[in-house]
Amino acid sequence: MNKKITIIGSGALGTSLAKVLVDAGHTNIVVYGIDEQELKELENGKNTKYFPETIKLPKLKTESNLKIAISNASYIVTAVPSFTMKGVIEEIQEKMDSEALLINGSKGFYPESSLSLHEGMTLATNENKNIRGVVSLIGPSHAEEIVKEAPTTICAVDVNEKLAEEVQELFKTTYFRVYVQTDVKGAEVGAAYKNVLAIAAGMIVEEGMGINTIAGLLTRGLNEMLIFAKAIGGKEKTVIGLTGVGDLIVTAMSDHSRNRQFGRSFVRDGAEKALGTNKTVEGLVALKNIYKIGKENNLELPLAYSLYAIIFEGAKLVDLQQRFWNRDLKAE
Amino acid sequence: MNKKITIIGSGALGTSLAKVLVDAGHTNIVVYGIDEQELKELENGKNTKYFPETIKLPKLKTESNLKIAISNASYIVTAVPSFTMKGVIEEIQEKMDSEALLINGSKGFYPESSLSLHEGMTLATNENKNIRGVVSLIGPSHAEEIVKEAPTTICAVDVNEKLAEEVQELFKTTYFRVYVQTDVKGAEVGAAYKNVLAIAAGMIVEEGMGINTIAGLLTRGLNEMLIFAKAIGGKEKTVIGLTGVGDLIVTAMSDHSRNRQFGRSFVRDGAEKALGTNKTVEGLVALKNIYKIGKENNLELPLAYSLYAIIFEGAKLVDLQQRFWNRDLKAE
Repeated sequence: MNKKITIIGSGALGTSLAKVLVDAGHTNIVVYGIDEQELKELENGKNTKYFPETIKLPKLKTESNLKIAISNASYIVTAVPSFTMKGVIEEIQEKMDSEALLINGSKGFYPESSLSLHEGMTLATNENKNIRGVVSLIGPSHAEEIVKEAPTTICAVDVNEKLAEEVQELFKTTYFRVYVQTDVKGAEVGAAYKNVLAIAAGMIVEEGMGINTIAGLLTRGLNEMLIFAKAIGGKEKTVIGLTGVGDLIVTAMSDHSRNRQFGRSFVRDGAEKALGTNKTVEGLVALKNIYKIGKENNLELPLAYSLYAIIFEGAKLVDLQQRFWNRDLKAE
Repeated sequence: MNKKITIIGSGALGTSLAKVLVDAGHTNIVVYGIDEQELKELENGKNTKYFPETIKLPKLKTESNLKIAISNASYIVTAVPSFTMKGVIEEIQEKMDSEALLINGSKGFYPESSLSLHEGMTLATNENKNIRGVVSLIGPSHAEEIVKEAPTTICAVDVNEKLAEEVQELFKTTYFRVYVQTDVKGAEVGAAYKNVLAIAAGMIVEEGMGINTIAGLLTRGLNEMLIFAKAIGGKEKTVIGLTGVGDLIVTAMSDHSRNRQFGRSFVRDGAEKALGTNKTVEGLVALKNIYKIGKENNLELPLAYSLYAIIFEGAKLVDLQQRFWNRDLKAE
């Protein structure tokens, strides 16, 4: 267990995955980051920017020089904001000096594209002989709870089953259980839609409605996810699994989610302020992509289209609600 | 809209359904109950035992004599605890004097049987020419939120589509949207399993774990619901709809649920105390029925069997957790 594993990113996600890997028995782990203060804390088993003092982390080796950090690494784990991923992948490829498997823990879309991070990273690296492949970790897994060792289930996603199984073994601990998932298209549906529905859930919460309404939203939203999955070639079984329903529940039901917080802010503070201060909310990028793909393929996605109208076209939440409720009654 | 509608039960559920029916425009509604104080409050637009003073209810006509209450009623809505349903149905049949449709709002199992309320009521009344049929309301719908007019979606369930459509029309308001669902078997899977999983969710919460674990539980639980549905002849589409996923979310994620509260109490107060003071928790009846049907049909239902072992056989939560986590890693 002494193959070198480098984690790119010293934030909440990177720290939580480093802890899992330590607990899985790996002894040669390096966390790369750019915030010297944060790295110094990690060396001392803390990360107070993201986690309370009471959380006990392992003492982690850190490095602020990327070339040194990834030198001779067998595994490179990306845990950075999605909008930085293109630059990160370019720099990794420029500086790496050994054969490695990329493991992506970040969520969202690849910059300057409508590709998922997994697809974008795969495309950007598939000519590079030093990179054995890309496997993404997708599923219900708030970092805040992983570091508390709350039992967490997640999928290792890639079309290459052998690589996904390798990642499954790599992260095996008593509280982090990894399932292999080779249906990349299906897994991406959840990754995109959950953030969109989390925005809607935040709006509902802030409007003072309760869990009846949210449960209805998520159920009808799941129905849209299945329609969307069918259109892009994902499997229904995947959508009703951890990367779909599971991640949807964790994202839409918890105020840990920045997307849900954006939805709350949109109702509380108004569109202008919410959009002005939340440029990096993944759900907004996802919503534009879903809208585009939905319209191109003539899909019936009333929730996504309604949300698009509210956020980008100035439609009123209450009008859309009335329109939704006044549609003809029908079978489920 | 002046056909007579009688609601049997003046508790939270009965009151909330009465309010919906008033808001749907019906003018001849009677609430039957046995608690004179509660009925007096309802006549004055209040029900302080279940709802805060701030909730404004319509002033409801009430009646404490069952024969008078149901005389000439076209619709009889049952909103009573499931363990009283057998007696209630017998008494209704004995005293009714006109042709009526039974609409069931209660949840759970029919007394002295392993039948759902819907099946039990159908069986107990299908020779009675005065009863046109039974339609059940199933879906994510806490009464506490209905009375606040929070948008709520629910299914009218029966094999007879015409009757379900009649109920759909009857309850149509701006905040209560009813879908027709003719797959009774499928709808029953959610009705049973949600309470069982809500117990497990309560245990998880009380153990101090968080939403990663609950999302994993509900997702793997959904997988068991689909296995169970297949065995008893329910449709997958129903299970991933309002009566399945929707009701599961609302029940397992909210402390309104008595089943979730039972799970919390089981961990906090111990088995003996929790079981001693919670004899009427629906999830316990459901768990026994699921266990029985599962074992008879050789179904793989690890969550249900684990919970059964914890509650009825003294197994330790922590042991089962370890057993679950140490199973072979596999594909999702």
